[in-house]
Amino acid sequence: MLAETIQKSQIISRFSEVRDYSCSLCEPLETEDYIPQPVPFASPPKWHLAHTTWFFEEMVLKKYNSDYKEFNPHFSFLFNSYYQTIGDRAIRAERGSITRPSIDKVYDYRNYVDHAICKLLESNTTKELHDMITLGINHEQQHQELLITDLKHTLHFNPTWPVYEENYDLTDDKNRKDSWIKIDSGIYEIGYKGDGFCFDNELGRHRVFLDSFEVSEALVTNGEYLDFVQDGGYKNFKYWLDEGWSWVINENIHQPLYWKQIDGKWYQYTLAGLKPLKPDAIVTHISFYEAQAYSTWKKRRLLTEFEWEIASDHIPWGQRWEWTYSAYLPYPNFKIADGAVGEYNGKFMINQMVLRGASSATSPGHSRASYRNFFHPQHRWQYTGIRLAK
Amino acid sequence: MLAETIQKSQIISRFSEVRDYSCSLCEPLETEDYIPQPVPFASPPKWHLAHTTWFFEEMVLKKYNSDYKEFNPHFSFLFNSYYQTIGDRAIRAERGSITRPSIDKVYDYRNYVDHAICKLLESNTTKELHDMITLGINHEQQHQELLITDLKHTLHFNPTWPVYEENYDLTDDKNRKDSWIKIDSGIYEIGYKGDGFCFDNELGRHRVFLDSFEVSEALVTNGEYLDFVQDGGYKNFKYWLDEGWSWVINENIHQPLYWKQIDGKWYQYTLAGLKPLKPDAIVTHISFYEAQAYSTWKKRRLLTEFEWEIASDHIPWGQRWEWTYSAYLPYPNFKIADGAVGEYNGKFMINQMVLRGASSATSPGHSRASYRNFFHPQHRWQYTGIRLAK
Amino acid sequence: MLAETIQKSQIISRFSEVRDYSCSLCEPLETEDYIPQPVPFASPPKWHLAHTTWFFEEMVLKKYNSDYKEFNPHFSFLFNSYYQTIGDRAIRAERGSITRPSIDKVYDYRNYVDHAICKLLESNTTKELHDMITLGINHEQQHQELLITDLKHTLHFNPTWPVYEENYDLTDDKNRKDSWIKIDSGIYEIGYKGDGFCFDNELGRHRVFLDSFEVSEALVTNGEYLDFVQDGGYKNFKYWLDEGWSWVINENIHQPLYWKQIDGKWYQYTLAGLKPLKPDAIVTHISFYEAQAYSTWKKRRLLTEFEWEIASDHIPWGQRWEWTYSAYLPYPNFKIADGAVGEYNGKFMINQMVLRGASSATSPGHSRASYRNFFHPQHRWQYTGIRLAK
Amino acid sequence: MLAETIQKSQIISRFSEVRDYSCSLCEPLETEDYIPQPVPFASPPKWHLAHTTWFFEEMVLKKYNSDYKEFNPHFSFLFNSYYQTIGDRAIRAERGSITRPSIDKVYDYRNYVDHAICKLLESNTTKELHDMITLGINHEQQHQELLITDLKHTLHFNPTWPVYEENYDLTDDKNRKDSWIKIDSGIYEIGYKGDGFCFDNELGRHRVFLDSFEVSEALVTNGEYLDFVQDGGYKNFKYWLDEGWSWVINENIHQPLYWKQIDGKWYQYTLAGLKPLKPDAIVTHISFYEAQAYSTWKKRRLLTEFEWEIASDHIPWGQRWEWTYSAYLPYPNFKIADGAVGEYNGKFMINQMVLRGASSATSPGHSRASYRNFFHPQHRWQYTGIRLAK
Repeated sequence: MLAETIQKSQIISRFSEVRDYSCSLCEPLETEDYIPQPVPFASPPKWHLAHTTWFFEEMVLKKYNSDYKEFNPHFSFLFNSYYQTIGDRAIRAERGSITRPSIDKVYDYRNYVDHAICKLLESNTTKELHDMITLGINHEQQHQELLITDLKHTLHFNPTWPVYEENYDLTDDKNRKDSWIKIDSGIYEIGYKGDGFCFDNELGRHRVFLDSFEVSEALVTNGEYLDFVQDGGYKNFKYWLDEGWSWVINENIHQPLYWKQIDGKWYQYTLAGLKPLKPDAIVTHISFYEAQAYSTWKKRRLLTEFEWEIASDHIPWGQRWEWTYSAYLPYPNFKIADGAVGEYNGKFMINQMVLRGASSATSPGHSRASYRNFFHPQHRWQYTGIRLAK
Repeated sequence: MLAETIQKSQIISRFSEVRDYSCSLCEPLETEDYIPQPVPFASPPKWHLAHTTWFFEEMVLKKYNSDYKEFNPHFSFLFNSYYQTIGDRAIRAERGSITRPSIDKVYDYRNYVDHAICKLLESNTTKELHDMITLGINHEQQHQELLITDLKHTLHFNPTWPVYEENYDLTDDKNRKDSWIKIDSGIYEIGYKGDGFCFDNELGRHRVFLDSFEVSEALVTNGEYLDFVQDGGYKNFKYWLDEGWSWVINENIHQPLYWKQIDGKWYQYTLAGLKPLKPDAIVTHISFYEAQAYSTWKKRRLLTEFEWEIASDHIPWGQRWEWTYSAYLPYPNFKIADGAVGEYNGKFMINQMVLRGASSATSPGHSRASYRNFFHPQHRWQYTGIRLAK
Repeated sequence: MLAETIQKSQIISRFSEVRDYSCSLCEPLETEDYIPQPVPFASPPKWHLAHTTWFFEEMVLKKYNSDYKEFNPHFSFLFNSYYQTIGDRAIRAERGSITRPSIDKVYDYRNYVDHAICKLLESNTTKELHDMITLGINHEQQHQELLITDLKHTLHFNPTWPVYEENYDLTDDKNRKDSWIKIDSGIYEIGYKGDGFCFDNELGRHRVFLDSFEVSEALVTNGEYLDFVQDGGYKNFKYWLDEGWSWVINENIHQPLYWKQIDGKWYQYTLAGLKPLKPDAIVTHISFYEAQAYSTWKKRRLLTEFEWEIASDHIPWGQRWEWTYSAYLPYPNFKIADGAVGEYNGKFMINQMVLRGASSATSPGHSRASYRNFFHPQHRWQYTGIRLAK
Repeated sequence: MLAETIQKSQIISRFSEVRDYSCSLCEPLETEDYIPQPVPFASPPKWHLAHTTWFFEEMVLKKYNSDYKEFNPHFSFLFNSYYQTIGDRAIRAERGSITRPSIDKVYDYRNYVDHAICKLLESNTTKELHDMITLGINHEQQHQELLITDLKHTLHFNPTWPVYEENYDLTDDKNRKDSWIKIDSGIYEIGYKGDGFCFDNELGRHRVFLDSFEVSEALVTNGEYLDFVQDGGYKNFKYWLDEGWSWVINENIHQPLYWKQIDGKWYQYTLAGLKPLKPDAIVTHISFYEAQAYSTWKKRRLLTEFEWEIASDHIPWGQRWEWTYSAYLPYPNFKIADGAVGEYNGKFMINQMVLRGASSATSPGHSRASYRNFFHPQHRWQYTGIRLAK
């Protein structure tokens, strides 16, 4: 009974903490910043705030509280993330067109739902409910990271280089060590182990055989990457995958996203505004194509996600998502959950590459060695970096 | 001296009146409404408010006031309408991504410039300055109409059918007369005549020969147009121009823009929200392709812009822009002004059709019989309608 | 009776002459040349040969000869030019994919239909039949010109610069006179007059009022146009219509179609292969956008189609199609014929500009002062040139 | 000495046999069939015949025969498969526009090069030369399969359903067994083993750990797949990957490529013409998306390429390429050869899925258990099928 009370108070407190963190991320914003969606793959802050709330309303309150009165019937339609028919899909690229409800109403919506969730958690202490709340918390944390990276992407379209927060984005990697760690060959276990939360795509723990390999303790820096740029890395077909080269040519790519060369000097757009490029900082906003081309130029290679997971005990990580040369595919015995929750991860297991680690934008308490992040090889608006192997 | 004083006070008062009217159009807006640009051809309210101000700063204050201190050097770049190089063009489709300056700053900008203009008009009473102010006033009026039509277009993407103003958009044509007016053949003069303001494309007054024709006193109504829809007008190739039919097929067009059929009943999105379709109201948001197809189905034809201008003395007009079957081409002896002002109208004399008249969204005092409006034949987010001839 | 015999023999002889001329145009071809269609707007020689035959089979033999046995039921589908539904449209861009029937079979088809037509003309001497045969002859002549211009366009994709005929395309304008002809103002009659053949779009003869103007006796030469190129004509926005400039930028246009600069020297692809550019030859393969930009740079203007028609008595013409600054629109009282024949010209009266005159590729006996040719403003694979007015 | 003579005669005979086989595949063609390229991903027969010859001229004769006189200097440009700059890439989609050289000249080219190769092989018996000839032979065999599948794709655009050969494509799987084979868990070796020829992507033989699994002895049939179609498989989002569903919707996919439903009955376009669908034949022309959706509907899964390679000893295979749920990625220790030969396989290791097995169109002697074929998940013009695992 006491244990239950403690657990109840813990989940309420965790829930509130994560929900509040979303709002705190938006403190530096002006109302106008909540709205635009310049590209289909990134969503506006208003949408992130509302959609994460929708999850709790739709997946929790409507299911576990029979007295629950919907905040606004339109919201269920407006803030659902994922529809299967054409008409509704159009909505996805049009999130930035939806001015009403205003952001004030969205904050009201958050308060209303938060209150209802906390009240529900007081009375219902089943594992089923707690699991769903935990999924919602983790879902919200994923959107917290997207909120920051999407926002950065939107703000960079503004030629006046808006500042989100004066001290954001300016880390330097002072303690980096330039050594190689050797991992022995053998049969290893891969996938989430433990009784905490993990996503379905981490399950199906299984054995893989790995040959021995060496992994760099440090991530590639801006300075090292600049050598590649200045050595003509973006002009020489031979370093690139065929589709990577098409991307370079068709999209007119000459440097990492957010790098600018002005009067011969290099700058980098950060959430603290436009800043001179720091050579010792970790290079970031790199596509898989760029990571692969850099590694070829450097006569090294990227790790597989399995190598990374095994190496993770021996290397510092968590500053940048690290591209692996593994495609995002189901683990053996991967199982898709029934219903809407099951549409979550398995649907995307094609044409995407796995990233491991975490980044400075990852929410506190949301990292694990078994976490499988994934993006298309051309995308680079996340905080993505490069770790080499040999 | 007295005359000058009167004229001075008249232009200041006209300037202030038109500038205030822009702001009054925005009173019903929420901050969020000022931002989005879902389609490249329509601009956000914030941009209209800032760009019209930019015109006075760039074309007037910087030229006629050597002491003028720019409000913000970024604005000259952000709110220019028209650039000739590729990089800058991209900006056009990205107006909706620019969240900063906030709308409050834009209103500050307006006040700052308005104050400077009024002060300038106190001391400088040259015809050259007055002409440029007059051009700026007319330019702002054009953007007032676009502000409303662009806003309507943006709001209609919202499936909750936002209301701009409860009483907007609901006119009914009670006094319409169903008669035909006959115009005799002869040589007529076309183009602006008088000493007021007109745009360069109305000049080069010249003679045309017209055969006699008959023109409908009334515009086509929703009810009449619905007959066309229900007679399979959108399903029968034979009424349509070849490119009009491609448009119908490729864009999946089945009815006028903003018409919706819900459970067998017809509705129309208006700035007062979604309303039942009124059969006696004038049909609007019609593309040239639809106007032409309707006229073919009805065994009538559209007027030329020359016929319209001559007929305009004999028909009521001003409720809806009326598509003519005249391409937007230079009048004989059309002259392009030097410099940026000259880039205004002549640049667009290809692939567009002329509309004559005015609409309910046209600003007060901005209509003339010689006014040449023009849009591409597929566009229909303006208040456009159909008048038949035979 | 004798008159009828003479007329009968005349039409048979005219029919045979025009049909043979199509075949003679193909004599220099290899079998492979009959097939490709690299761009949707140009058709392969095989298709032209078959489609013109289809016209006689479908519009004449099936209607006027009840005993007629179709050559091959598939051909009616394969070689129809124009369908109103989506599925069939796709066919248009896929003419180059249709390898069967082989070209031998198409020649058999031609012989079969020619024989049947001649036989029919022996027995049926009605005006209705003669009119339809005449329409078919003129239709075939239009396709003869397209056959040559489409072929040139296809061959120019081949980096080995294939030769169609050693002496084709190499005319020089030796006798050009550099003078201006003045035309007085007045009311003029426009449109076809006479009792010969004309297309429906030339009818509706009507009066127009023209101000006086001066027209150049000569067309613009390669050398004159080269001055425009070398003066930065393709790099300066101010000479171009807005959509013309977009075309220049998006399509990466730097010179007329078929011009090549190799090692600093200018060449021109002709049907006789790649040849050094002749400065005194008439410039050709010019889009409307280029013609308009050139005239602006030269501080002249293009003629309207009405001015051209009136001036045509006083100037030499027929070497190149001449862009006018008139949109292709219906004449007053333009009437669309019933049925499939009526789908011919009126359907295209939007977004196209009128060309007047004729070119070296126009078939013998197919030119008239009232002839209205029309193309979209960006197209330039026809033999198009520039005549200036002031 | 004798061994060398035998080996020399063997390689000459193998070379001649494979080269002749390419020509024999083209025997049923008409000249016209050699030309078109309706889609960028498929090439015309003429190009396949010339490009495979170019390989021997460029990679062998120019390198190993200092006296060699090029057949035609243009051909080196025209028939190269792969360029790294934009300009030349355009050429890829324009292979179907190149009418000259005629096909007769291409056969002359083949004879000329074959003769020179055979002569070279008489005098030069180095392993280096033999290896390069062997690579050229295998390269030609790959193009033989593409020649057939590309041709089928081109012919199917023709609504008259051309016949390539009366008896092609009509196999039925009479002896199929409906049983499941069990494979034990363990560490297995993957990759080519032996001293014959293999491609670079099969090398880097390495160990993998596999859990036990069961594999179907038979491939899925038309009849079984039709059950999926008739159960609404193409209408239900839940069976499909997210990008697979977008493909179904955007490309309007309702059944396998080449299936047609006419008057309620199912047909299949084959190289023998349009034929009634055979329920017992193996289903083919399936995309990865379809294979994956079918397996989900069937509550089974696809094999990984590693499972397939280990299972290949226990199942009949070679009738259809089998999609695996493995992305095409480098094996550990994959090494890219230097120079142009090295651009072969590694460049494509992104966004493609591995197929294992072989098909009826695979050339004799060109199959191996370790062979890694690969295509994008939406492609289905190859003879691709489905094998299930559980």
